[in-house]
Parts: sequence; C-alpha cells; structure tokens
Amino acid sequence: MLPDHLARFADKIPVLDKGFVRLVDVMGDDGAIIEAARVSTGKGRTAHDYAGGTMGLVCKACGMPKPMRAIADREDPPESPCIEGDRRFIDYMLREGHHSPFEMAEIKLHVRMPIFVARQWIRHRTANVNEYSGRYSKMIDEVFALAPDEWRGQDIVNKQGSTGVVTEWPKGYRLDRNLGGVDVDIPGGRGFHVSNGSTDEITPGTYLSKRQEALQAEAREVYEERLAFGVSRELARVDMPVGNYTEWYWKIDLRNLLHFLGLRMDQHAQPEIRAYANAIARIVAAWCPLTWRAFEKHRLNATTLSADAAAFVRDWMQMRDMPMNATGTERLRFDRLDKADRAVVLELLGAEALR
Amino acid sequence: MLPDHLARFADKIPVLDKGFVRLVDVMGDDGAIIEAARVSTGKGRTAHDYAGGTMGLVCKACGMPKPMRAIADREDPPESPCIEGDRRFIDYMLREGHHSPFEMAEIKLHVRMPIFVARQWIRHRTANVNEYSGRYSKMIDEVFALAPDEWRGQDIVNKQGSTGVVTEWPKGYRLDRNLGGVDVDIPGGRGFHVSNGSTDEITPGTYLSKRQEALQAEAREVYEERLAFGVSRELARVDMPVGNYTEWYWKIDLRNLLHFLGLRMDQHAQPEIRAYANAIARIVAAWCPLTWRAFEKHRLNATTLSADAAAFVRDWMQMRDMPMNATGTERLRFDRLDKADRAVVLELLGAEALR
Amino acid sequence: MLPDHLARFADKIPVLDKGFVRLVDVMGDDGAIIEAARVSTGKGRTAHDYAGGTMGLVCKACGMPKPMRAIADREDPPESPCIEGDRRFIDYMLREGHHSPFEMAEIKLHVRMPIFVARQWIRHRTANVNEYSGRYSKMIDEVFALAPDEWRGQDIVNKQGSTGVVTEWPKGYRLDRNLGGVDVDIPGGRGFHVSNGSTDEITPGTYLSKRQEALQAEAREVYEERLAFGVSRELARVDMPVGNYTEWYWKIDLRNLLHFLGLRMDQHAQPEIRAYANAIARIVAAWCPLTWRAFEKHRLNATTLSADAAAFVRDWMQMRDMPMNATGTERLRFDRLDKADRAVVLELLGAEALR
Amino acid sequence: MLPDHLARFADKIPVLDKGFVRLVDVMGDDGAIIEAARVSTGKGRTAHDYAGGTMGLVCKACGMPKPMRAIADREDPPESPCIEGDRRFIDYMLREGHHSPFEMAEIKLHVRMPIFVARQWIRHRTANVNEYSGRYSKMIDEVFALAPDEWRGQDIVNKQGSTGVVTEWPKGYRLDRNLGGVDVDIPGGRGFHVSNGSTDEITPGTYLSKRQEALQAEAREVYEERLAFGVSRELARVDMPVGNYTEWYWKIDLRNLLHFLGLRMDQHAQPEIRAYANAIARIVAAWCPLTWRAFEKHRLNATTLSADAAAFVRDWMQMRDMPMNATGTERLRFDRLDKADRAVVLELLGAEALR
Repeated sequence: MLPDHLARFADKIPVLDKGFVRLVDVMGDDGAIIEAARVSTGKGRTAHDYAGGTMGLVCKACGMPKPMRAIADREDPPESPCIEGDRRFIDYMLREGHHSPFEMAEIKLHVRMPIFVARQWIRHRTANVNEYSGRYSKMIDEVFALAPDEWRGQDIVNKQGSTGVVTEWPKGYRLDRNLGGVDVDIPGGRGFHVSNGSTDEITPGTYLSKRQEALQAEAREVYEERLAFGVSRELARVDMPVGNYTEWYWKIDLRNLLHFLGLRMDQHAQPEIRAYANAIARIVAAWCPLTWRAFEKHRLNATTLSADAAAFVRDWMQMRDMPMNATGTERLRFDRLDKADRAVVLELLGAEALR
Repeated sequence: MLPDHLARFADKIPVLDKGFVRLVDVMGDDGAIIEAARVSTGKGRTAHDYAGGTMGLVCKACGMPKPMRAIADREDPPESPCIEGDRRFIDYMLREGHHSPFEMAEIKLHVRMPIFVARQWIRHRTANVNEYSGRYSKMIDEVFALAPDEWRGQDIVNKQGSTGVVTEWPKGYRLDRNLGGVDVDIPGGRGFHVSNGSTDEITPGTYLSKRQEALQAEAREVYEERLAFGVSRELARVDMPVGNYTEWYWKIDLRNLLHFLGLRMDQHAQPEIRAYANAIARIVAAWCPLTWRAFEKHRLNATTLSADAAAFVRDWMQMRDMPMNATGTERLRFDRLDKADRAVVLELLGAEALR
Repeated sequence: MLPDHLARFADKIPVLDKGFVRLVDVMGDDGAIIEAARVSTGKGRTAHDYAGGTMGLVCKACGMPKPMRAIADREDPPESPCIEGDRRFIDYMLREGHHSPFEMAEIKLHVRMPIFVARQWIRHRTANVNEYSGRYSKMIDEVFALAPDEWRGQDIVNKQGSTGVVTEWPKGYRLDRNLGGVDVDIPGGRGFHVSNGSTDEITPGTYLSKRQEALQAEAREVYEERLAFGVSRELARVDMPVGNYTEWYWKIDLRNLLHFLGLRMDQHAQPEIRAYANAIARIVAAWCPLTWRAFEKHRLNATTLSADAAAFVRDWMQMRDMPMNATGTERLRFDRLDKADRAVVLELLGAEALR
Repeated sequence: MLPDHLARFADKIPVLDKGFVRLVDVMGDDGAIIEAARVSTGKGRTAHDYAGGTMGLVCKACGMPKPMRAIADREDPPESPCIEGDRRFIDYMLREGHHSPFEMAEIKLHVRMPIFVARQWIRHRTANVNEYSGRYSKMIDEVFALAPDEWRGQDIVNKQGSTGVVTEWPKGYRLDRNLGGVDVDIPGGRGFHVSNGSTDEITPGTYLSKRQEALQAEAREVYEERLAFGVSRELARVDMPVGNYTEWYWKIDLRNLLHFLGLRMDQHAQPEIRAYANAIARIVAAWCPLTWRAFEKHRLNATTLSADAAAFVRDWMQMRDMPMNATGTERLRFDRLDKADRAVVLELLGAEALR
C-alpha cells in the first residue's frame, strides 16, 4: 500500500528508550497538493511552461528547451512534469500562506510514546487518534527510564525548559535506604552502593536512575497486585507513572502536521517530544520533498522581525556609514526596543554592525 | 492508486444537469478501521476467534471450524480474516458511538456543483477543500437550469422544503415580453409563444424555463462584457447567479462523511444536494461495505423514540390486551404527547394498535 | 460578570476526593440560541404568536389571550416573550438535528481533575483548553486516592467497565511488608496490621488503600528529591502517577458540550469522569433550562431502534392479538435479531409481550 | 450585556454599500486571556511584581514604587493590576506562539454581506455560524452594486487581484440597447444615453453601473415572479446573483479571529472582504487593546525573512563597508535568491545599501 520509496518507514523507527514511530499509510504527495491547487485555475498537474518564450521555446521555470516537432515527431508530445515549476509553485503556496492545498495530503502513523509525551501531542486537535486503552487492556509493560547521564537540570531563564545535566549532590544531602535490594548510602556530598559486603561510590545520576528503577518496579508491582485482587483495570492503573508507554494510531493532514512539527521541533519543546517530531520529519522529507524544502526555508529556519525590529533595521540602514556608537540617538533607540527585538536585530545584523 | 474495485468511480458520476462526483483517492477501508481500533486492545486485524470452543474448535463469530493440523499440515496456518467477526465489530462500534476508528479511513472527491449547493455543503467544517477560484480564473460556463417539469412548488408545512410541481398560471397573470428572441404572451390564465408568425400554447413550466434561460444568458453576457472592459474577475462575477457551477476537491474522513450523508440524504435536505449525497453513498457502499451496512441499520433507517414516546410505548404495552379507545386514560396520555412524538409512536405501533 | 442566578456556581463544586468544577463565565443562554436561529427567518426573539386565531386572539403556542386594546390602551403593547413558544422552538431544533444555533452559547469552566480523567476529557477536540503545566510549575500536590470501599472490580461482560467492589483476598495471597511505617501481614486469606505491638485484622480494601497511600507518598518523595537535585521539572515529573491532579480552564460551546455530556454521563463512561459530567450537567440545567429539557428528552433518555429492531416491532404489532410463543415464526425472527436489537426490543415492549 | 466601552458597537457599522457589522456579545477580554494563561503557573491575574527590588521596592515591570505601609496603613493593601506587566505577558505569548490563551476570549457578531464575501468568509472553519436561509425565508432585497468609479481593473501580476479603475471603452466596442428604460448607444470609442430626446455622453463606469442595475432588477423580477407562480423558495433563488446580501451570526474565539484578520486585512484579500475585516479590527482594538497591539507588532506589520534571505543579510552585514556592486560575488549571490527573497531584502535594507 505504501509507495516503494516509503516502504522502509513501515519498520519502526526507534525513539527514546522504548518508543517508536512507524508509517502506516499515506494519501497523496507533493503532486496531489499541486493537483488540488490547480482546481483553482482549471489547469492540470504542472508541466513545462513554454509560454512567452521567443524562438526556440524554453520552459520559463526550468529552462529546458521545448522538443522540436521534427524530433518529437507527433501531434501532441507528452510533456514530462516540470520539477522546477512544481518546486516554485509549492514554495509560493507555502510562503504566501495558501494552506488549504497542503491539507490534501494525509499521513497515518503508529506511535509508541510515554504518556507525558502523548499529553503534549494530543493538544494538536486537528488530527484523528485511536489510543491504546488502559480500561480495555492491561497497561503496556514499558516505562520511560533515564540513564545516569540523562538527568537534565532546570533552566533558570526558560522556566519551562532544561539545561545541562545533574552532576552534584544537593548540599548536605543525606540518605540511607534500600533500593531494589541494594543499600544506598549518601552521607552528604558523596553516594555509595553497598552490596554483598562491597562498597562502590556512585554518581548522583546513577543514584537517580537507581531510585527511578525501584519506584517504577514498585508501581508496576502494585498494579499487578490490584489486578490479582480483581480490581478493575480502569482503577488499578491510577498510580501508574506518566512515563508509562502508550500507543496510538495518529492520522493528520500535511498542513496540520507541519504546524505540529514547527512547534515540536522547536528548541522550546521538551526534548522527549522533539525526538518524535524529528523522526516524523525524516518521513515527511522523503514523502513530500518539495514541501519539506519550502517548510525548512519559510518556517523552520526563517527569521521574523517584529514591526519595531524591522523599522529599526530599515531606518538604521539609511545611514549605514555611521556606525552606531554607545552614545548616539540610534543607540538609545536600540536600547528602547523590547528585549526580544534586540536579540533578533543583533542575531541578524551582527554585534559588529551595531558596535 | 485506487484499488481495482473502486477504479470505476474515477470516472465522473453525473449529478444534476451538468454536475458530477469523481473519486480521486482513498486511504484505508473497513480493514483499516478495525486495525486502528485494535490498537486499543493490543490485537491485530480480526481473524477467526476459536477461543472458548470445546472439541472440534469452531469460530465463535462465523461458525467456521478450525482446520485440523493434519489438514493444514504446518506449524502456524495463516488464518483468513473472519468477515463475520469484522462485521460484528464494526456494527458494534458504530452502534455504540465509538466514532474515532471511522476517522481512520479518508476519501478525496472531485465535485462539480452549483454554488448554492456548495454553500450548503461547505457548512460541514471538518473537511479539506480546494475550490475553483472566480478571482483567479474565469467563471465556469455552466449554469444549473431546470426543465419545464422540474419547478417544484413551495411546501407549506415544511417551510424550507418543496413539494409537487408548478402547473398553474398565477391568477390573472399577464405578461407580454421578448425572451431570447421569442415573444411570450400571457394574457391571463394561459401562455403563448409567438415566433415566425405561428403561435404555440406553452405551459407555466416551459415559460419559467424559457425565462430562466434568457436571464442566465443575459448574466453571462454581462460577465463577458465586463471582462472585455478589463474589469477584474473578482468584480466582474458579482452578478453571476448562485446556480452557476463551481468545482472543488473535497477530502474528509469516513466518520464525518457519514455525518454529512446522514444529514444530506435526509428527506429534509434540498433535493439538489441529496443528489450528490446519493452519488457519494454509492461510492462509500463499495469502499467500506461493512461500515455502510452498519450505517444504514443504525442511522439512516433507525427510529429514535424520545423519552416521552418510549415511556408511552413501555407503559402501554404492559396492558396490551386493552385496546386504546377514544375515551380512555391512555388516549388522553397519547394526546398529550408532543406532535412529533405522536407521529413516531403511530408510525411504529400502527394506527390499528392505537385505535 | 455571571448572571445572578448562576453566581452560586462560581464557587467550586467538589468532585471526587480533591477535584472541583467552577463556573468562570458564560456567553448567551436559551434566548441567545433562539435569537441566532431567528436570523434564518428574519424574525427577532420569540413572542406570543397570535397569528391565525379568530375572535378573541389566543397565542397558538401557550394559549395566553391577547390583551385587548381597551386594556392595553396603547398603540403597540410590548409583548412578553412566550416561554412555551421558546420551549417548542428549542425542542424542535434539538430534535431535528439543527445543531448550529446551540453553538451560539458558550461556557468557560475551571476544573481540577486527575490526569487520567483529563486524558479522557481532552479527546473532545472542539474546545479551548489552558492546562496547568508541569514543565513550568511544580506538580500540584494532590493525588486521587480511593477509600477502602471504593475498589471497584473488573466487569467481565463490559471489558472496559467495572462492577461491584473488591472484598476478597486473592486465593493464597501472601505478603509481609512495611507500608508507610506499619507492618502488613497477609498470611493467605486474611490480612493484618501490626503496629506498636498490637495486631488488627484488615480488609482487602483497607490494604489496597494503605498500599496506594504508601506508593503515592514514595512517588511524591522521589519527585521532591529530584527537584532538590536540580533536576528540571519536565523530567522530575515522569514518575508521578496518572492519578495526580491537574487543572485547566475549559471553554466550549453548548452544542459540543451536550455531545460531551451525552458520552460522559453514559453508563459506559468511567465513573470518575461521569462525576464531572454530572456536576457540569447541574450548571447547564440552570444556565439553559429549555435546552436541557430537550436534551434529556431527545438524547439522554431517548431510545434508538435500529432498522432491524424497528422493522420487527412494526411487523409484529400488525398481528398483536397473537402472542409470540416459543415456536412461532415471530419467535424465530426475534432470535435472528442481533443481540443488541433483542435487548432494545425487550426493554421497550416487555418480556411479557414477547412471551 | 456588553461592557460600557463596547456598547457603541452594538449599533451597525456600515460596510460596503448596504452591509454592516454589529457586535452582539463578548466573553472575556485581555484580562481573561491572562487569567487562563496563569492557570499554567498557579498564579492569579497580574499585579505589580515587586520581587527582587531592594530598599524602596519598585515593580520590575512598570517601575511604580511599592506604597509604604505607613501610607497604605493597612495589613494587605489591594494592588492595582500592573498594565505594563500585562502588556509584556500578552506580547510574549503572542510572539512565542502560545496561542491557546487567546482562545479564552470569544466574540459574537451580526453581519450583513454579499454572498460572494460570505463564501470567502466561511472558509474559516473554526467558528460558529447561523446564516439567513433562502430556503426558509425570502431572499433579502439588497444587492451589492458598484458606483461608476468603482469598477476596478484586472491586475496582471497578481492574477487574483485588481488594480486601478476602468476608464476606457474596449477597442471598437459597439452596443445599442435599452437598459432600464434608457437607450444606451455605444458606437465605438464613446457612449451615450438617449432619453426623452436628449443625448448625454456617458463614461464606461456609468455604463457598467447602468447595466448592472438593469440586470439586478431583472434577476429580482424573475425571483418574485417565480414566487408568484408558487415555485419553492429553494428553487426560485437559483438565479439570484452572488452579490445579493445575506446575513449571519458569527461567533469565534480571539485566536482564530486574529488568524482571520491576518489573512483578510492583507493586501491580497479582495477589497470587499477587507472592508469587513477592517471594521472588525476596530472592535477588537477596543475590546482587547493589549492583544491588538501585540498582533499589530508581531503579525500585521512584521517582516519574515526566509532562511535564504536571512542568511544573505547575515553574511553580507559581516563586510558591510564594502558596498555591493554590480559585479561582485555578493551581487551574484543576491541575484540567485528567489524573487520573493530579493524583494524582502531590498525592502528591508534599502536599494541604496545594495547599490
């Protein structure tokens, strides 16, 4: 059912420690987007556009010369589609915000991800979803677990983000506790494993992973115990962690998928959902390469200047031989910009230009 | 791209005088609905369900016996899917309102229809649309026209409906007018064509069609004239009739398509849009036959009793050997039902039962 | 901002052990639905309908006589709105599936609920949501906990439901374990608390609640510990239970809210989300009483007969003096109905009628 | 029901020749957006943020000093909300694409517009609509008509746009025709009215408006005639022009309204729908002034540089003392940019900078 060049995505693309993305089906592609868009103009799918040339007609989009009658030797030579014409058309539509043709391509994915990722994902409402049901079936026996070097620290500037990795013990932290059959001793400033009479020093990351493992095992044990008591599945699960894996079929049109990717590939998205977005991006790049290129150019890697930032750049460029010094009017005006505007201007024009 | 058994719908199905419906693409089918629904249960696509049988296992759904090892002669005989199991599963989901699996099948149609039909159609918001643009291209040169015997009369009871066909001249109606090069003379109570010296009597329907033809020709002429003046297409079109044909690509999932069909195949829908709904229904019946059967059973041909109507039927059946006569308590109670409830009860139990 | 008669709902309505629903704002009401619907007809809000009466005019809807000029003593007496006319109009629209006017009333709620409830809730896509963020803020320190007599058992027939309450120990269950500082000893068939030298016998429900309490305390402790280590909030939370409470603002139009209530007040919905739906229903009944009545009549308490069930009832009623006995044709036909159809027919006509 | 400062919008704002926009109701405002967003952080509505100051505390956002206890003279002085804090918060959310809080404000409008405008409008699917029904009621007796100086010409570059006004007769255009009781004579190159024996020269615009008037009168006459014949309203209307006025109630949340305004206030939108968008913009600016400011800054008047355009600007600024001349490498690189990118770069940096 999948076209050959996408067949490889029918195998699971691994994401995170136990998750995956798998391509189930597609409807349409770059060509279908163009076909639907052409209904506006009464034309069919793109072909070479020889109109307007003079002697020796040449396609206006790709520059390929029109085959001469003598060569083609027939009334109405079939024209191969013009890739460059297609590229421009798709680039134009995406750039100008003609979104509806991109809704004409549809994709269906099978995904396994932690519940906390699913909760961010489901906020994208314009999609179809069938999720694994913890009421109907036993919870999937997989939990998202972090390796010792994966405990990211809290970002102070971006209050909802993370940065770096935890490597220090909290000041004066003390603990002496059995975790999964191993004694952990943290007398303050250092941590140790005590097992079978030997003592190994451990890092904070190792300790956090050990404790996670013990907690997850306990939560699963309680879950299984409840089922053994005959507790209904819909209640037995209420203490399962939000890191437990779930699965769903997810179907969405390309326009809304691009919106999803724009938000979830962004550096402000939680890295766990970004991992899924990046996996999906690989599929989209293979499925609709022209759209993907336009998306990278006009969304993912574009720079937006607010009205204030744009006005500053425009005005300042008029007198560009006068470098902006620390005391001038321009400097004052720059300082009065919102912080976010200053950052964009600096990133674009360079601190040097604004020295 | 279309599966073989749907390939015939790639040709235009004619609708109304100049419209059509054409199947462009599908994603999924009955099987895909089941596949997605099964993600809830961790099972794959349906197969025979031999569980629970005793000696000589028999599929619980379809009754087919399990092939014996001696016959099958291999470790793990591939099981043909169980149609009866699939039918029950889809029937169950549609009956119980488990709608989301039906969103996993998607269809794309190419449609040509009058603008006034498109305006009713577009109210169904959960769909993707690319429409022919009268700003970008010249208006399609086709208008919805009625034959003399198609001028339906106004329904008095259903204020938004029509009934019967116009066959009478309005009382005392008088007109003497040139329509498209032919003189029409209505002296009151009868109508005549005067052409080339001869006089033919005409019916009201013929007159209405003639006058429609003349008005449509005039509107098109004005449109073309404006274009000749260099008036922009976006303005030139403003006096084109709402019966002018337009086209679009329309993509929708099966759940929302069924909702569309439920409303637009209904007897209260305008017959012009019903014609399109009926054409689409033929495609759906071929595309997802199990779903279509369930839809006919549980929606299209179902009967809904309001709480009041159901309570009346329940109570009345308890003493069914007492026919409800014109003076009894039951009669009073029946009369106190809302008009719509009385109609449903009568239709279901029969006037005889309630004599 | 809230109208007076709704002001009481600005206080939290308690739901479950620690959740609530709180009314933040409404736009429109029954009257606004009618007002918008009347745009179709060019009429304003409903008033008495005296049209069609003869001498001594009487409102066709409510029967109230028109005030005489002598009494009213002015040119154009203001008419009080006609409640009965409004009731009929709203009943008609809801019955006939004219849904769009019900989208003209909007409600905004503030809700606190367990994450597993939020996950079912969010599947209703046509709504606006702002949720508490566990990336931005510390997780709310409240978890859904069950009292000893609330551990519902698994329903065998309805695989996603629950029934009864757990009162038995699993056969041969053995455990000896410290839960939150108390020793629990289950030697098989009975359970005991050992604390401060004394031993109390406990029920399975008490044991399950104790163990839940201990697990939840452990999960919270791990969460707080991670924060103490400087782990980012977005990662620290991954082992918090799906029973942890979250909050959101939820805004939805009345049409879609009724759809939500129809599904979530249903007996197949998980009791935890039904508790929220029931709380919201109280608000809706006070906010839009005419709509609520129509909804109860035509949706909540309506009975739907499939085409097959309706055909059976119709045919059978034609020969109702012949009771359906165990061997007759009718009996065979009844038996051939789908199980769900048989249940509806029996519920409606009574086992007695079909004896 | 409307807050006082919006009460003036309850009166119709005239749009086009016979249309209007009228504010029916609002739910929420800038404050409600903030309130809902704060549910993410557990904080209430914004107030002065004195945190982090030293002696003589000063609000970090607006700079207002904290009132001293001696002055305030009470335990817990109520803080006026901090407008500057609110402004920054809303600016931040809109800039960073945190769209959901903007869905917490809702608006309901009553609009009268030509059908061809309604057809563009209805493409915005995330809204609630109740439209005047031509099946239920007689078509509104108003048609969109153009004055002689309003016949915009076809734009050649933007194939879906218009430019300038028609002032010339088509070459060799000839016509001699009675329009609404007046003879119009166009012998080629000029036009004349012949009425009551006198002859007035007329412009192409006057002619086009005259002919429009005659066609619209004819269409209305045919419509009324059909109704006189008893033709159903749903059929009688099929030749009414798409310029006929219709009405609807339209309800939408602020996020989606801003999306609508971003597209429909754009210079590529048809001027007729832009007129409505501009009227609505006035209401929004009064209703949610902080959001409106942010929208103007970050959407309406923002400049987006594609990845290519941004890369060019960045690289080129590194060697800004070298003006880009006609033969240099930079020139070549500039020429290789897509046309749309070149336009943005030129508009931003100035042709002078790139001389």
